[in-house]
Amino acid sequence: MIPRIELLNTGSELLLGNVRDLHLSWLGKGLFPLGLRISRQVTVPDGAMIRDALVEAFPRTEMLIVTGGLGPTTDDMTRELVAELLGRRLLLQQEILDNIQERCRQRGFTFHSRMERQAMVPEGAIVLPNEHGSAPGLYIPACEGVSSVRPHLFLLPGPPRELQPMARSFLFPLLKNLMFSPQRVDCRIYKIVGMGESMVEALVGLKLSQRGDLEVGYCARPNEVDFRLIGSREVLEKVEPLVLAAVGEYLVSDQGEGMEEVVVHLLKKAQATLATAESCTGGFLASCLTDVPGASEVFLEGFVTYSNQAKSDLLDVPAALISLHGAVSEEVACAMADGARARSGASHALATTGIAGPGGGSLEKPVGTVWIALSSEGKKTEAWREYFPVDRTSFKQVVAQSALDHLRKLLQKPSVKSGSKTF
Amino acid sequence: MIPRIELLNTGSELLLGNVRDLHLSWLGKGLFPLGLRISRQVTVPDGAMIRDALVEAFPRTEMLIVTGGLGPTTDDMTRELVAELLGRRLLLQQEILDNIQERCRQRGFTFHSRMERQAMVPEGAIVLPNEHGSAPGLYIPACEGVSSVRPHLFLLPGPPRELQPMARSFLFPLLKNLMFSPQRVDCRIYKIVGMGESMVEALVGLKLSQRGDLEVGYCARPNEVDFRLIGSREVLEKVEPLVLAAVGEYLVSDQGEGMEEVVVHLLKKAQATLATAESCTGGFLASCLTDVPGASEVFLEGFVTYSNQAKSDLLDVPAALISLHGAVSEEVACAMADGARARSGASHALATTGIAGPGGGSLEKPVGTVWIALSSEGKKTEAWREYFPVDRTSFKQVVAQSALDHLRKLLQKPSVKSGSKTF
Repeated sequence: MIPRIELLNTGSELLLGNVRDLHLSWLGKGLFPLGLRISRQVTVPDGAMIRDALVEAFPRTEMLIVTGGLGPTTDDMTRELVAELLGRRLLLQQEILDNIQERCRQRGFTFHSRMERQAMVPEGAIVLPNEHGSAPGLYIPACEGVSSVRPHLFLLPGPPRELQPMARSFLFPLLKNLMFSPQRVDCRIYKIVGMGESMVEALVGLKLSQRGDLEVGYCARPNEVDFRLIGSREVLEKVEPLVLAAVGEYLVSDQGEGMEEVVVHLLKKAQATLATAESCTGGFLASCLTDVPGASEVFLEGFVTYSNQAKSDLLDVPAALISLHGAVSEEVACAMADGARARSGASHALATTGIAGPGGGSLEKPVGTVWIALSSEGKKTEAWREYFPVDRTSFKQVVAQSALDHLRKLLQKPSVKSGSKTF
Repeated sequence: MIPRIELLNTGSELLLGNVRDLHLSWLGKGLFPLGLRISRQVTVPDGAMIRDALVEAFPRTEMLIVTGGLGPTTDDMTRELVAELLGRRLLLQQEILDNIQERCRQRGFTFHSRMERQAMVPEGAIVLPNEHGSAPGLYIPACEGVSSVRPHLFLLPGPPRELQPMARSFLFPLLKNLMFSPQRVDCRIYKIVGMGESMVEALVGLKLSQRGDLEVGYCARPNEVDFRLIGSREVLEKVEPLVLAAVGEYLVSDQGEGMEEVVVHLLKKAQATLATAESCTGGFLASCLTDVPGASEVFLEGFVTYSNQAKSDLLDVPAALISLHGAVSEEVACAMADGARARSGASHALATTGIAGPGGGSLEKPVGTVWIALSSEGKKTEAWREYFPVDRTSFKQVVAQSALDHLRKLLQKPSVKSGSKTF
């Protein structure tokens, strides 16, 4: 049997919306290769509601990961609540206290007596050292309680930069040891752009879901579907040709890679280079590309030309062109792309110019309008008018995705399927 | 009494980590001004576990928001499970079906018979139109069930660009109507950089938490603390001078604004302008700035100069300087900032050059090393060597934050407190 594993996130800031949780997706991805899947995730505010959530989770799961509430301030209560529920005493560990005091000295912070709480350890708990913060994590092995069995408990610090190294060094190895016969399944995510999820289901999904040895899932985003298959490697390999035949040129990647990874790999393969000229995406397109390790081999330079002056100065867009057609126009988009390619010497250049809003729209060019241009060596520069009436941040994202997709299609043109198999 | 409100997110992709939840933070922020706070959030996979989560939540809350599972594919089961649990029949609404077919026509998609499920409505439910997708939302008012009272149920689509407009148009107004005497409290978030949370608590937090009429919270991030106070407007105004006196120049903002908003506002106030020259942050710094509406007034242009060639071509960094000191050096950082300022004519320019990793580090300059430079009109160009041994994406974030903080300190120098009050 695969053990159940639950995640309990504590922190009022998560429920108030001031801070966005990163743990679920990070831990979910990290646990899958161990053969583990989070069966439920719960968020509760700081304080006594943590107790209710713990009591409810205990009989439901074999392993429970709790994040947050290990800090030095009054709203941090996880350690104390767990000790109380398990009927364990909290004992001061001098070594932890010494570490905290040493940390304060090194960083020039004053030691406060309240920090001492972070050196308290429930009897029988195993301390998980924290390389990037003062509160250590705690592992309390499963045990018979007064009236019932308790799950394996892992208490981890809330900040991702403390939790993540601790999970890599201790949580994942401990979980691996606890699993006697992990059932290994693989997950394949086909990223499909320009085809609706109903179509994907009709073409291939329904048939695959009837097999019984595959878990089939869909996640739709604007203009994009993640088609997810979970099963044994053999089954996944067997059905892959069916998927490829069904989705054809709409397939962006078959391992869940993001669009930017796909484009960087295609550029490397083609020994081509790229420059960007951004108005409305304001650096986001360049930032997507530079999120990919090794992007520096293909991404030569990026221009963020918000002002008209910058478009002329940096990209040689004639001022007359801007005043004649407006900054958001086919002509200016093409001139930006051509200018970026000429200045950088790259084989391709992408340009974006649009109205992200909230202000700046007109009847003819409402907020959400964008021109995307692609200039490529030995090819006529092309431009596309698109319309994404979404909030400012989403606008930057969908425009950057769409710009990259135009380049992807050009780079993949010769042979889609063989291209998609080599990433 | 303030009604309890719970959020149930459905979707295996959330638990597998392939997709990050955006609903909790977005809804949390949107509900607070209505006097509502999410008391618990739960994520479960697609399928039958949704039923367990619904059954458990019903007696615990007065209002329940369920996201996802309204799509056309086999893994979408929320509508059917809810109807079954409430003992309601599902009836086809022709108007919804017509809309879906019209949508398909407009977008050139083929209509599939499975989409018909999206036009099924549980008896007694109120349909919430979806402007950005095919599945409408559903509101099922609270009612006496066979054996117990059911909460008000809101079923919303999973994609954020469908859920968010629907929540603004229907969910928030409906909830407002359901609340007879909302208890209005305000939330103030003081963003503090360079002071630990224990210090904030010792200086002011502990005293405030003893008042009894304030909820005090802390959220620590690398080099940063959000100090959160929730209470009536009168109390918040009364205690504000205590907070300001305690945290002084460490205060970045007092309304929870991000660093980039603070910097854009300070630049506007000073009638100053900014240019950026980015190597290791790869456009992320420019993208942060252009996330702020109105940034175009102060942000003139950005250069993403990943390659040494680009640093010389675009920013006039002498090639000899790069070969002598290396691209990650004080000299090159300063030359980049000076070059960006000279080229753009901006009053300030920020430059970043560092080693984001995973490759490229050396003993002398390990992965995580960065030089940040600030060039300002009439001032000697300054540079700071910093070290952030974190993953590639976090590296870009902390370097961008740190670069902006150097500029903030310069802009706030004359009078910190009056500056922080005027945003």
